[in-house]
Amino acid sequence: MKLPSHGSNPQHLFKSLGLSLPEKYVDFSANINPLGPPPELREKWSDFYSEITVYPDPFAEKLRYRIADREQISVDSILIGNGGAELITLIARFLSGKKVVVSEPAFSEYEKACRANDCEIKYHQLMEPNFELCVDQLLPSLSGADALFLCNPNNPTGIQYPVSTVISIIQECEKQNCFVILDEAFYDFLENYQSFIPYINKFSNLIIIRSMTKMFAIPGIRLGYMVAAPDLIANISKLQPHWSINSIALMAGDLCLQNEEFIKESQVYISEERERLFTFFRENGFVVTASQVNFYLLRDPKLKEQKALFKFLLQKGIIPRHTFNFPGLEGNWLRFAIKSSAENSKLMEVLLEWQQLH
Amino acid sequence: MKLPSHGSNPQHLFKSLGLSLPEKYVDFSANINPLGPPPELREKWSDFYSEITVYPDPFAEKLRYRIADREQISVDSILIGNGGAELITLIARFLSGKKVVVSEPAFSEYEKACRANDCEIKYHQLMEPNFELCVDQLLPSLSGADALFLCNPNNPTGIQYPVSTVISIIQECEKQNCFVILDEAFYDFLENYQSFIPYINKFSNLIIIRSMTKMFAIPGIRLGYMVAAPDLIANISKLQPHWSINSIALMAGDLCLQNEEFIKESQVYISEERERLFTFFRENGFVVTASQVNFYLLRDPKLKEQKALFKFLLQKGIIPRHTFNFPGLEGNWLRFAIKSSAENSKLMEVLLEWQQLH
Repeated sequence: MKLPSHGSNPQHLFKSLGLSLPEKYVDFSANINPLGPPPELREKWSDFYSEITVYPDPFAEKLRYRIADREQISVDSILIGNGGAELITLIARFLSGKKVVVSEPAFSEYEKACRANDCEIKYHQLMEPNFELCVDQLLPSLSGADALFLCNPNNPTGIQYPVSTVISIIQECEKQNCFVILDEAFYDFLENYQSFIPYINKFSNLIIIRSMTKMFAIPGIRLGYMVAAPDLIANISKLQPHWSINSIALMAGDLCLQNEEFIKESQVYISEERERLFTFFRENGFVVTASQVNFYLLRDPKLKEQKALFKFLLQKGIIPRHTFNFPGLEGNWLRFAIKSSAENSKLMEVLLEWQQLH
Repeated sequence: MKLPSHGSNPQHLFKSLGLSLPEKYVDFSANINPLGPPPELREKWSDFYSEITVYPDPFAEKLRYRIADREQISVDSILIGNGGAELITLIARFLSGKKVVVSEPAFSEYEKACRANDCEIKYHQLMEPNFELCVDQLLPSLSGADALFLCNPNNPTGIQYPVSTVISIIQECEKQNCFVILDEAFYDFLENYQSFIPYINKFSNLIIIRSMTKMFAIPGIRLGYMVAAPDLIANISKLQPHWSINSIALMAGDLCLQNEEFIKESQVYISEERERLFTFFRENGFVVTASQVNFYLLRDPKLKEQKALFKFLLQKGIIPRHTFNFPGLEGNWLRFAIKSSAENSKLMEVLLEWQQLH
């Protein structure tokens, strides 16, 4: 069985399992805001058309000023990316040939991009069931390392690490000339996330990545940004293709960031749905990670590997994300996005069916 | 005077010259089809909206099959890019640290991307006024080179090189283990262009790049492709970020390539306008390159450096592309896109004014 290395592509998944895609299905494998994009994107969509005929601003000035203002940082601390994945690739290119530690489980692109750039890769494995991040356990694995990839809140567990722990790690890494790439792709799903952006001028080894496609449900148009000290941004920018961010993404991003109310509404929706789901899981014997964001890991503790549950769900038109390519998870968990209320209810219904049969 | 390194950004240009942008201006600096995008893009635009909420197919299968069918090649010979500029960056990354020859004058991104990847760069300078490509003159500069960048039809001259010359160069390069990157960004503006795509399986050193943003007037959404032997494509693909091509570009590209009539109509329009313009230039003492595509170089032979003419045109709301950052041109020519009939007439009018004053 050769499963796809990412979610959000049900056709590939079913094909690789030799199953036929049910007529009706719900894709829980992509961690996208279930409320969809902010309404103004649809309202302005026809205005966007004229943007396709002109080159995008290669310096993305308008969007950078918007972010600079929002985050209270200088515009030259910001690099806009063609999705978070481009930023990861640029960092991997910047680190090429270097020794890289990935705190696992983690988004698989860190390792893939670093391998493509001949980095030497070492895992630091966080352990089930709490996937706790401990400075003392991490430090030995950093010996001789040039960079550490850390995702906070973590994908795929959804767990947020304590601020003091992350700060200690950045400090220790700085002493060892080791970059910390802190992926905050899902930070905005937390109501009270304390960002590390204010630390970029204090720590010259800190690189923060953010995605704009998850909260604003626009993965199709690709948009993310990187925040770091201006020198570092200047060096990494040189590796980016010219005109890398399309005009639609630039305009959409600028619109989305102006809608604070949408962000708050999404946070509340997700948090209420998560509470509802987690209560159900506790009451019905499923184990989940202590996620604070819009996805979580789940397992049926009666099974080690969850393949039987995975197949059962697929056949019922529920598509979770498998974890066979997450080191340290190896298929023993399934990842689910928090979807709309009706879709989450459907998931609970199918899981009840599963429990009744097993 | 620090001029922008690319066209299509009048705000930056005027700012860098300390001029204020006229209220009405015509941008001749971007080589985009003056007919605009094929009409079906506007017709289908509202259908595209739903695509922004889902991840793009990272393998761009539909578009690759479309191109494979059109070009009669296998799908694994094709890599879709986030614009031609991304493909150039990927190739530069692939060549990092290597010795690269750029046949100049050429699109400035080859050099910029190769420098960012620590390549050693050598120019092979084609000489005014015909910018002829001669195998015998080129060969000595290829000694020890790992790659040659060649643009055909050439940007910025618009000149097409003889097929036999290009074939000889590819053959000679193959003997020396030297890649040939043949940039066919403007091939589709020629009515009878003989592409080198049929040679990709014969020459394992041949890499062809094509843009889809020029003919289809969609520079805002970024789209291009690379064609080469499957092994080479597989190696270069590894360096590309995941989900690098946005969903709108994938859908638009697939639609555009089905409209052969639009391509033909554009070719005829451009060819007629070019004839009209060139007749005027000949009759009024301007020198132009023997362009066969949708842009050309122009100079007033009474001046060496064309800065005075450049400024005159800018003040009249005509924005050509300066050539100060094209090695071998150094500001001695101006590049103009072929625009709509009315816009081209306006250009001729302003040039007449210039002639009457000088």
